[in-house]
Amino acid sequence: MIGMTKKRGSYSKGVLKRQEILSQALKLIAENGFESTKLRELAESVNLSEAGLLHYFGTKDDLYVEILRENDKNELYELFRLNTENSAIRPSDAETECKKAEAEADQDNLQDSGTDSVSAATASSEHKHSGSESSMSELAERAGKLLDARLRLMPSQSREHVDVLSRLVRIMAHKAQVPGLVELYSYISVRAADKANPAHAYFLERRNISSAISVPMLKRLQKRGIVSSKLEPSDLNRIFNAVTDGLLVQRLIDPDLDIERLLLELCTIIDWERDPDSNPDIESIKNHRSQS
Amino acid sequence: MIGMTKKRGSYSKGVLKRQEILSQALKLIAENGFESTKLRELAESVNLSEAGLLHYFGTKDDLYVEILRENDKNELYELFRLNTENSAIRPSDAETECKKAEAEADQDNLQDSGTDSVSAATASSEHKHSGSESSMSELAERAGKLLDARLRLMPSQSREHVDVLSRLVRIMAHKAQVPGLVELYSYISVRAADKANPAHAYFLERRNISSAISVPMLKRLQKRGIVSSKLEPSDLNRIFNAVTDGLLVQRLIDPDLDIERLLLELCTIIDWERDPDSNPDIESIKNHRSQS
Repeated sequence: MIGMTKKRGSYSKGVLKRQEILSQALKLIAENGFESTKLRELAESVNLSEAGLLHYFGTKDDLYVEILRENDKNELYELFRLNTENSAIRPSDAETECKKAEAEADQDNLQDSGTDSVSAATASSEHKHSGSESSMSELAERAGKLLDARLRLMPSQSREHVDVLSRLVRIMAHKAQVPGLVELYSYISVRAADKANPAHAYFLERRNISSAISVPMLKRLQKRGIVSSKLEPSDLNRIFNAVTDGLLVQRLIDPDLDIERLLLELCTIIDWERDPDSNPDIESIKNHRSQS
Repeated sequence: MIGMTKKRGSYSKGVLKRQEILSQALKLIAENGFESTKLRELAESVNLSEAGLLHYFGTKDDLYVEILRENDKNELYELFRLNTENSAIRPSDAETECKKAEAEADQDNLQDSGTDSVSAATASSEHKHSGSESSMSELAERAGKLLDARLRLMPSQSREHVDVLSRLVRIMAHKAQVPGLVELYSYISVRAADKANPAHAYFLERRNISSAISVPMLKRLQKRGIVSSKLEPSDLNRIFNAVTDGLLVQRLIDPDLDIERLLLELCTIIDWERDPDSNPDIESIKNHRSQS
């Protein structure tokens, strides 16, 4: 028993140190770029040797993938905030609606098996900002369901789905503010071609998380006529992700590129918001964005 | 004079050797991927030492950028073939039309200066497959004008613009068949963030070439109502390029991803081919593609 306690103690310390390293890595990459952030420098800043640092992760690529995961997690929490802040919808209503959606989604999964939805980990009925304890897939699934639940609750005349759109776009464009992250992302995407590299699993996981969040939302928006494009939600999602990734790389050499504006243009292309009752043009979406 | 002749002799030999190295590099990368192609291996295959090989280019990054340029050049020649093969339009007519377009374009340039069109290098009135002698920008400008000229000559009922579309899409998706090139492209995009790196100039050049080819074409297609999306042609072009780049990276981990299909879906999204007289759905575009 003493052994176990010791182990748990050192385990928690390990978790904390890992967390410190990842936060520090994100900070250094944001400040100096990925190419200029040397492993030695990162190690020194957390009082470790290079070997000591890698001890927490494995290989360099393991470390890089964990840095990207840490950033993804931060972006997911931003998505969660969508569901709690500035909303006319009470959290308890969203919660009830979320449970309905879960039951519905389970049925959907039974019907169309083999889709690329994340394997249904049972989401706890109350989400806490629990750091490294929640797995990414659970977070993603929960975020997707809450987002969906919130969309179901919105009256059709509501302006809130415009808000959802503009904040989603802002999250997607977030990396643009941190070129170092885009550099790291590109670097790791090269490694992902090798199936044995941790980058490969990371990219697969990321794709699954993205569809777990976006595909049900796009389906719902199509059903309500807010997105009138007839494309398969999974294709729409792929195209959106591809545009975002591609624009982020373009922006490395072209810092004036306005990714948010181009993503909003793409939204008008897929006929997001062609609802005749509430048909803000791109200008009003932009104004809405700048006010929030 | 003798000195000059000698110099020219060794210059041509140098050009030939460079060309051999680049062709060999593209071959090795296509066969083995970028990560697995070692400089030593490339050097050995052209009977040089590593230092001897780099002598032709400068740094490793200079070599990598030249490999990508070589591939771009091959893709541009594919675009040229659009204008000569399988067309009901006589080359001489396209040539006359091209001159008209050049005069028009010059006027346009005077009117809206400061756009991102390639600086107007005077294109020779007859294009030859002249290898490394033509600069990329000249080739691109010429390709853009010929493509535009050909579009002007097409009767509105013609099916040829569907062919232009499907072949353009095929060229854009070409890299998908060669994951090694995509890996190299991602690798180099990381380096491009550094303005002093040759990758930076390469990406700027590539962006300018892309708009020199696509922007006038998209403008023309909008004027004729073949592309009914109201987006700025330069934004449409950026979005298309971003989708292509993003999908290529996605495909590294997902070899079943059908880039051609998704690009054609994107074409339906931008209302390409909403012309009521000739409104082939995506299926007929696909059939047309598989026949050609």
